[in-house]
Amino acid sequence: MKIGFIGTGVMGNAICLNLLKAGHDLVVYNRTKSKTDNLVAQGATWCESPKKVAENAELIFTMVGFPADVENVYFGEEGIFQAAVKDKYLVDMTTSKPALAQRIFREGEQQGAKVLDAPVSGGDLGAKNGTLTIMVGGDEAAYQDLEPVFKDFGKIVHYFGAAGAGQNTKMANQIMIAGTMTGMCEMLVYAKKAGLALESVLETVGAGSAANWSLSNYGPRILKDDYTPGFFSKHFLKDLRIALETAKEMKLELPATKEAEKLYETLVDERGLGDLGTQGLIKLWWN
Amino acid sequence: MKIGFIGTGVMGNAICLNLLKAGHDLVVYNRTKSKTDNLVAQGATWCESPKKVAENAELIFTMVGFPADVENVYFGEEGIFQAAVKDKYLVDMTTSKPALAQRIFREGEQQGAKVLDAPVSGGDLGAKNGTLTIMVGGDEAAYQDLEPVFKDFGKIVHYFGAAGAGQNTKMANQIMIAGTMTGMCEMLVYAKKAGLALESVLETVGAGSAANWSLSNYGPRILKDDYTPGFFSKHFLKDLRIALETAKEMKLELPATKEAEKLYETLVDERGLGDLGTQGLIKLWWN
Repeated sequence: MKIGFIGTGVMGNAICLNLLKAGHDLVVYNRTKSKTDNLVAQGATWCESPKKVAENAELIFTMVGFPADVENVYFGEEGIFQAAVKDKYLVDMTTSKPALAQRIFREGEQQGAKVLDAPVSGGDLGAKNGTLTIMVGGDEAAYQDLEPVFKDFGKIVHYFGAAGAGQNTKMANQIMIAGTMTGMCEMLVYAKKAGLALESVLETVGAGSAANWSLSNYGPRILKDDYTPGFFSKHFLKDLRIALETAKEMKLELPATKEAEKLYETLVDERGLGDLGTQGLIKLWWN
Repeated sequence: MKIGFIGTGVMGNAICLNLLKAGHDLVVYNRTKSKTDNLVAQGATWCESPKKVAENAELIFTMVGFPADVENVYFGEEGIFQAAVKDKYLVDMTTSKPALAQRIFREGEQQGAKVLDAPVSGGDLGAKNGTLTIMVGGDEAAYQDLEPVFKDFGKIVHYFGAAGAGQNTKMANQIMIAGTMTGMCEMLVYAKKAGLALESVLETVGAGSAANWSLSNYGPRILKDDYTPGFFSKHFLKDLRIALETAKEMKLELPATKEAEKLYETLVDERGLGDLGTQGLIKLWWN
């Protein structure tokens, strides 16, 4: 299938390589053109706008930064909806607002396009190894059509329901991670202040009913002062904001997630450390 | 070794059975005497006070409810320190205040006793199966002496340092669980409100970087409306209060843990649901 890909950052680029490897024709666009160079060298074709990508592909993936970028890529002057998209597949993989996913779906429906929201989890390694988890919402028939393509770069692919359901599942995922990240950081901070040997604490706490992925993966990195991003703090803060905004629209209070948002806000906005990985949260205590 | 055991509730009783199975002589005391009946039937000897237990054993374990109970069992009129405890081992396995563990240690030192704090994790099942995790602080030589006895009912046994270090490790463990429990509940609450299929959400969220023990063990129980306690909410609230009080003494702020304490306080004190398992927290949203 002729595939268009808009947004070839760390994640998008790795997915594109898997799509090329699977034998798809690829047209690509990225705001910073140089980030498509490696893909063009491997046979992809550069297009100068999202609109041009949409004109030259049957299936268009988008994976950009913030909801405002998503909006621009779809609804902007040079956006996807300026092309003739009838019968085409439009799939947004950015982690973005459920309400925006619904708006794109409705506009697509009017123009005869088949729209999905399909955010992913699994990070840069998952993208590279083709083992992402893909959470899909939107047009169910379109999901059935595209499942084989999703499998070219994802391991667990699941359809969750109408437009926005993929985004909402991703939000649920991030709310869970807010708990493991704040819990892990406060746990380490307490243990250090109490003078405990942190390696032993990680081992013991990680062996029982407190066990979790953040602890086993980020705990040891923190002890090595390694704050390189598996996932940027600034992106995690964006996700928490979307989750809490959406929760508010649903008249739902999530006090612990709200507290996590405040902590990441301090880290990113006040301390300017948004380029650290999410485990950088511990710097609020340890400097 | 002649062992005394004070506090034969769910956990203590199961540990006593493992000690009897390992061939130890056992003298027991419990505030509600009937909870020792099954042990006496298996060869244990009833004593009428903590003091009497201490007089009749070389190694005395205590496992009661709240710090005030610990205080009473050690320092009360019929307490352990009213007996001649020189050269005896005193081991408190109650999850209790690190500062109280240090006070017991100092008093023991004055009387020539060897004192350890050794709270456990692993719940009723771990106690029954002899697979508890035991976090030990206090007299290191005493820890070496008693390691074989600990192995009679524990799987992971680790020495963490001076008096209070066992309690502090347990507190670290509970701080981590505060994160996984609040995260899991708010995640499910969000997902339900968004109309997602909760079984699929648990499966997908539990497969990636949000994975944790609370999610895989309590998530499915919540979906079945099963709030039977693996661990009582009222006891978890007690633990969070001890952790935050101790953190405060160390001039440490733990905002996410504080929020978890508030939520469990509402559940236990306002809603009167302290006898539910910790997964009952979701009732703050679902009633």
